[in-house]
Amino acid sequence: MKKFMDEDFLLQTDTAKKLYHEHAEKMPIIDFHNHLSAQEIYEDGNFENITKAWLGGDHYKWRAMRSYGIPEELITGDASDKDKFDAYAEVIQNAIGNPLYHWTHLELQRYFDIDKPLSPETADEIWVEINEKLKKPEYSVRNLLKKMNVEVLMTTDDPIDDLKWHKKIKDDDSIDIQVLPTFRPDRAVAMEKEDFNDYVDQLAKAADMEINTVEDLTEALDKRLDYFDKEMGVKASDHSLEYNIYEDATPEEVEVIFQKRRNNEDLTPEEYAKYRGYVLSHLGREYAKRGMVMQLHIGAQRNNSDRMFKKLGADTGFDSMSDMNYSKELQGLLNNMDKTNELPKTVLYNLNPKDNEMLATMIGNFQGPEAKGKLQYGTAWWFMDHKPGMERQMEALADEGLISTFIGMLTDSRSFLSFPRHEYFRRILANKVGNWVENGEYPNDEKYLGKLIEDISHDNAKAYFNL
Amino acid sequence: MKKFMDEDFLLQTDTAKKLYHEHAEKMPIIDFHNHLSAQEIYEDGNFENITKAWLGGDHYKWRAMRSYGIPEELITGDASDKDKFDAYAEVIQNAIGNPLYHWTHLELQRYFDIDKPLSPETADEIWVEINEKLKKPEYSVRNLLKKMNVEVLMTTDDPIDDLKWHKKIKDDDSIDIQVLPTFRPDRAVAMEKEDFNDYVDQLAKAADMEINTVEDLTEALDKRLDYFDKEMGVKASDHSLEYNIYEDATPEEVEVIFQKRRNNEDLTPEEYAKYRGYVLSHLGREYAKRGMVMQLHIGAQRNNSDRMFKKLGADTGFDSMSDMNYSKELQGLLNNMDKTNELPKTVLYNLNPKDNEMLATMIGNFQGPEAKGKLQYGTAWWFMDHKPGMERQMEALADEGLISTFIGMLTDSRSFLSFPRHEYFRRILANKVGNWVENGEYPNDEKYLGKLIEDISHDNAKAYFNL
Amino acid sequence: MKKFMDEDFLLQTDTAKKLYHEHAEKMPIIDFHNHLSAQEIYEDGNFENITKAWLGGDHYKWRAMRSYGIPEELITGDASDKDKFDAYAEVIQNAIGNPLYHWTHLELQRYFDIDKPLSPETADEIWVEINEKLKKPEYSVRNLLKKMNVEVLMTTDDPIDDLKWHKKIKDDDSIDIQVLPTFRPDRAVAMEKEDFNDYVDQLAKAADMEINTVEDLTEALDKRLDYFDKEMGVKASDHSLEYNIYEDATPEEVEVIFQKRRNNEDLTPEEYAKYRGYVLSHLGREYAKRGMVMQLHIGAQRNNSDRMFKKLGADTGFDSMSDMNYSKELQGLLNNMDKTNELPKTVLYNLNPKDNEMLATMIGNFQGPEAKGKLQYGTAWWFMDHKPGMERQMEALADEGLISTFIGMLTDSRSFLSFPRHEYFRRILANKVGNWVENGEYPNDEKYLGKLIEDISHDNAKAYFNL
Repeated sequence: MKKFMDEDFLLQTDTAKKLYHEHAEKMPIIDFHNHLSAQEIYEDGNFENITKAWLGGDHYKWRAMRSYGIPEELITGDASDKDKFDAYAEVIQNAIGNPLYHWTHLELQRYFDIDKPLSPETADEIWVEINEKLKKPEYSVRNLLKKMNVEVLMTTDDPIDDLKWHKKIKDDDSIDIQVLPTFRPDRAVAMEKEDFNDYVDQLAKAADMEINTVEDLTEALDKRLDYFDKEMGVKASDHSLEYNIYEDATPEEVEVIFQKRRNNEDLTPEEYAKYRGYVLSHLGREYAKRGMVMQLHIGAQRNNSDRMFKKLGADTGFDSMSDMNYSKELQGLLNNMDKTNELPKTVLYNLNPKDNEMLATMIGNFQGPEAKGKLQYGTAWWFMDHKPGMERQMEALADEGLISTFIGMLTDSRSFLSFPRHEYFRRILANKVGNWVENGEYPNDEKYLGKLIEDISHDNAKAYFNL
Repeated sequence: MKKFMDEDFLLQTDTAKKLYHEHAEKMPIIDFHNHLSAQEIYEDGNFENITKAWLGGDHYKWRAMRSYGIPEELITGDASDKDKFDAYAEVIQNAIGNPLYHWTHLELQRYFDIDKPLSPETADEIWVEINEKLKKPEYSVRNLLKKMNVEVLMTTDDPIDDLKWHKKIKDDDSIDIQVLPTFRPDRAVAMEKEDFNDYVDQLAKAADMEINTVEDLTEALDKRLDYFDKEMGVKASDHSLEYNIYEDATPEEVEVIFQKRRNNEDLTPEEYAKYRGYVLSHLGREYAKRGMVMQLHIGAQRNNSDRMFKKLGADTGFDSMSDMNYSKELQGLLNNMDKTNELPKTVLYNLNPKDNEMLATMIGNFQGPEAKGKLQYGTAWWFMDHKPGMERQMEALADEGLISTFIGMLTDSRSFLSFPRHEYFRRILANKVGNWVENGEYPNDEKYLGKLIEDISHDNAKAYFNL
Repeated sequence: MKKFMDEDFLLQTDTAKKLYHEHAEKMPIIDFHNHLSAQEIYEDGNFENITKAWLGGDHYKWRAMRSYGIPEELITGDASDKDKFDAYAEVIQNAIGNPLYHWTHLELQRYFDIDKPLSPETADEIWVEINEKLKKPEYSVRNLLKKMNVEVLMTTDDPIDDLKWHKKIKDDDSIDIQVLPTFRPDRAVAMEKEDFNDYVDQLAKAADMEINTVEDLTEALDKRLDYFDKEMGVKASDHSLEYNIYEDATPEEVEVIFQKRRNNEDLTPEEYAKYRGYVLSHLGREYAKRGMVMQLHIGAQRNNSDRMFKKLGADTGFDSMSDMNYSKELQGLLNNMDKTNELPKTVLYNLNPKDNEMLATMIGNFQGPEAKGKLQYGTAWWFMDHKPGMERQMEALADEGLISTFIGMLTDSRSFLSFPRHEYFRRILANKVGNWVENGEYPNDEKYLGKLIEDISHDNAKAYFNL
C-alpha cells in the first residue's frame, strides 16, 4: 500500500518518480488561463480565514456540499465561517474519489504544512492552525503565488476592461510575477444573452466610437484588442462556445441579423450561429495577425436551475456538461479562418469527455508550420479536471496526435490556493509517461524523457504563447 | 494468477478483501428495482428445472445464444429443456469477458454449491445436480430469496394493477421479505404507442372515473398513486424515457394534444415531448409531496427487429442503446419541477455510457437538503451492468459528485436467481475503494471505509427510500 | 521494467505470453480489408528507398509530421527523400504514446531486423541499412507479404474496375497469396458528391447498358457484382457511411430523387438518406443471396480543410471523426433488409469511440443462425487503431456480445509494410484474454483458450468469409 498522499503521490513506478522529482517538480508555473483578480494580486492582502479563502467563491466546493445535503445557509448563506468550515470538513471526508479530496489535501500540505486528513475530527485544530498562518505576511496573496513558483498568470478580461490593475502590477518592479490579461469578448459574441444591447453600448464607450453596424462592432473590438496589446502585450484570447457555434454566412446576412438584434427582434438559432461564426472568424484573423492564441472552451450548459439562478446568479455551481454534437460546426469555424490561411494558434477544450477523441482528431486537420502543435487539444477542463479525466485527455492526445507538443496545465481557477493542481497534473503526466516506458512501449531514454516532461510542464507553453 | 472465481473474486488488494468480507458481504439486499412477479413470490413454487429458471424469460441469455448462431428453436422454440440447456452450456463457455459468464457461475456457486465451470463437458452432470436440488423445499422461490439475504424487493407495477398479490404477501406473517410495488405509469405517458387510447380507458376504469381531459388523466393517476400509497406504502416510481422527453408547454397546449390523440390524429415529436414533459412533471410533484423517489431509465431503443417483434413481441432480446442527446431536455424536465421547489428525490439511469459524465454532472444542478444525494446517478443499468460498466459508473459518480451518498445496486431482473449480482456489485465497489486506498489517494481509515461500504451496500438505500 | 519492444511486447502476464507465442504468432494473416494495389502485387517490384515505402502515401505519418510543425515541403513536397526521412525520424522520436511509434518500430524489427529506436541520432545509419536491404530480391512486394505470412488479401475495388490485375495474380501459379477484390460501390451511393452523374455514366459503360432509372442503376450494380463474383469469387463488399444514412422510402420516391439528381436539381439531406438507404438495402439483399459479407465503415468526416483539399486532394491527412448520432438510422437500414430476412452477414465499424457500446449492442438485434456472429462489431478502425482503441473495442464487444466469434484484425492500409499490425492486434488480444484469466474471471483452460486465440486471429475470419 502506498502511503496517503506522500511525496510519491500518484507516482506508481520508479520511472515516474524520477521524471517527476528530477524534472517536473522544479519547473515554474505558467498558468495561462484563470479567473484571478489583478486587483487582489496588486493589493496583496491576507485572507481573514480559510473559509474566506476556500469557500468564498468556489462553486466546485459548493456543489459538493449541496450533494451531501448541506443546507444553503452553510454554503452561500449567513452561517458563521467556522460552521461553514465544519460543514466542508464533513463533506470532504465523504468525497473519496473526487478531485476535491486531492486538491484540498495538496493545499493543506503545500501551503500550510498540514499532513493530516481533514474530517470532523480534525476540523477544529486545522481551523486554528491555518487561520494563524493566514495572518502572517508570508501568506499574502502574492506570497501564496511565490510559494508555488508561479512565473506567469493570464487572467480573464472583458474587452471593455481598462486593465488598470494589470498596469499597476507591470509598473511595480517589486512584483516579479508576470500578470497578463486574456481577451475574452464573450459578451460581444453571445447575442442571445439578454444584456447584449447594453453591452454593445458599453463597448462603444470603451472604444470611443459609435457602433451602428457589425463592421463598427468588429472595429471596436479591434481597437480594444490593440489596447490590450499595446498596454499589456496580450498573448491570448478566450471564448466560451455553448450552442449554435457556426454557420456559413455573408457579411450582408450578418448585418441584417445584427440590426434585428439591436431592434430586439426574435432570432433563430441559425441566425445566432451565423453571427457568432462571423465575429469569431473576424477575431481569429486578428489574433493570427498578432501571433496570439485563440482558446475555445466548448460545451458548458449553464444556469440549469432557474430557481437557484434567481437566488444566486451565474457561476454558483449550477452548470453541467452539455452533450451537443459539434464536429461539423467546429470544422466550419476553423475552416472559415484556415481557408485564407488566417487561422491563429488555437486551443480546443471540451467539457464532455465523449468528445475527447473527436477533438483530438480535429486538431490534426489544421496543423501548420507556424508552431509545434499549432492546434492544441487543451488539458482536461472543469468537470474533467481530475485524475481519470486528465489521463483520458492525455491518452486521446497521444493516441491521435503528439503529446510531446502539448502546452499542458492551467487552473481555470478563481482561487489563489489552486496552484497545486499544476503539481497534480505533472504527477499524472509523469506517471503516464512512466507507464509507457515501464511497459516497454518507449525506450528508457532519460535525457529525452526528462526534456519531454519539462516541455509539457513549462517550456512548450512558454514558446507557444511567445513569453 | 488468482484462482477462478474463488472467495476473493474481483478483489485485487488486501484492503478490498477486508472491505468486502468484513463489511459488504453481511449486508442484506434491498433490491429497489426489478421485474419479479409478486404472485410467484406469494405462491412460492419450485422450478421444474434449470432451463425453466434460467432460460424461461431471460432475454440477456437469449441474445447471447443468438449471437453464437444458435437456432431460435433452441432459444424460445419447441426444443426440449435439456437441449436448450446444452445449447446454453456451449454458448456460456464461449462468453469469456461477458457478464453472463460471471453471473452464471456466481449463481451456480451461491445457489447450488457447484464450483465447476459450465461447458459442454460438464453440462450433463450439472443438469442432473441442479435439477435434483431445484425440487427440494429449500429451493422454493422464497427460499431462493432468503438464501441471498433479501430484505426488500420493489417490483414494477402498472397503475391499473390491483396489487392483490402484494397485499397477500403483506398480510402473510410467515413472509419476512418486504415486497413493495413501484408505480410505473409508462403506458399513460407514452402517447406515441398504439394502445394509448385503450390504456386510458383501462385507467379510467381502475380509477373509477371518466377521463375526458388531461386534467382527468392526471387525477386518475393521482388516485391510483394514492391507492398504491394507502394499500402498500409505495416508495418509488419508475419511468422509461426513450425519445422526445420534454418541451415547455402550457396546460392548454397539452389539452389540445391530448384531444388530438384521443381522436387518433397525427402528432409531431414536439407534441409528444410536450405531453410527456407535462405529465411527468405533474407526477414528479406528486411524488415530492409524498416523499417518494422518481426513477428515470433513459435511452433504450426498443424492438429493433420488426421481424422478430412480430414473432416474439417485446422484451425478447431485440433492444439496444440509443445514442440520442438529451442534456437539454432532461434539464428542462428537472428544472420544470425544481423551479417551484417540487422536484422529488430522483434517480437518473443511462443506458449509453457516453452519457455517464453528463448525467453525473446533471445531478449536481438539483441537489438539496431534503436528502443526502437527493439527485442520484443510478447504478450501471442493463447493457452497462457488467464489471467495466459498473467501474465506469462509479468512477463518473466519484469524479463529479459524492459516491459516499450512492444508493447502490438493483437487479432490474426478471429472474429469482439474479441476486448474486448484488455481490458482484459489492465486490467491484470494494475493489474500487480498495484501489483508491492502496494507491495513497485516501487514508486507510478502516472505521470510515467500513461504514462507507455498508452505506453504499445497504444503509443509503434504506434511508433514501424511507424503509 | 519490461524491455523496449522485445519478444514479449505488450504481453504482461505468463498466460498472455503463452497464448501469444504458442497460438497467435503462428497463424497466417487474412487481411480482409485494405487498399493495396493488385497491380503492384502482380508486378512485384522493389521500393527505391524507405521514404518511398513509408512516406509515399501514408497520411497517418503526414498528419503526425504536420502536428510537429514540419513544413509541407518535407511531407508531400519537393524535398529530397533523405530530408523527408530525417524529418520523420525527428517526429517519430516525439511520438511517444502514438501507434505510429509502435508500428514504425515493429516494421523496423520484423522487416529489417533493426532493433534500435529511430531518432535523429540513428536516422543516418538506419537510412543506409534499410535502403540496402530494400534493393534485394527478398524485399520485393510479394516477399514482404510472405515474410509476414499473409494468406489472403482483400483489396478495395470500384464496381467499374475490370479486375485485370486480380485475374493475372489468380492465373499465375507462382503466386500463392490469395488476392481477392472487395466490391466498394461508394460512388454509386454517394449521390451528394459532385461527380455522381459522371460516375453513373461510367457505370453504365462498365455494365454495358443504359442507366435511365434507379432500377437500371441497381441492375448495373448487380451485373458488376456478378462479374466480381464470376471472375474472382468476391467475398465481401465495403461501404463508407458518413451522413444521411437511411430514411424509409418507396421505390417511387427514390425514382423521383434519382431523376432530380440526374437533372442537377438541389436535394435535401432527407432525400440523400432515402436514396442511400434504398440502394444499400438493394445491395445488401444481393450480398445475402450470394453469402457475401457487407462491411459498413461509419463516421468519417472528410476533407476538413478546404485549403489543403484544393492543394492535395482527398486522403491526404485532413479527415477526422464525426460525432453524429446514428443509432436510429442504422437500425432503419439493417431492419429494412432484415424484415424480409434478407440481411447479409454484416460488419459494423465505427470511427468515434463514443459509439462503441451502441454498436456492440446494435449487432445483438440482428443475429441469426446463418453464422456465428452473423453481425459483427468490427475491429478498431483508423483513428481507433491503437492499443487503447483496440482494448476498448474488444472490451465493448466482450461486454455486450461474444468476443469468441470475433473475426478480428484487418489493416485498412495503403502500405505493404503494415502487416505487423496483425501482430500488434494479436498481442493486445492475448494480453486481454490473459488478464481475464489471471484475474480469476475465466478458468485457465489452456486448450479452449488456445483455440479461442487461433479463432480470433485467423479461423473465424476464414469461416465467416467462406475462404
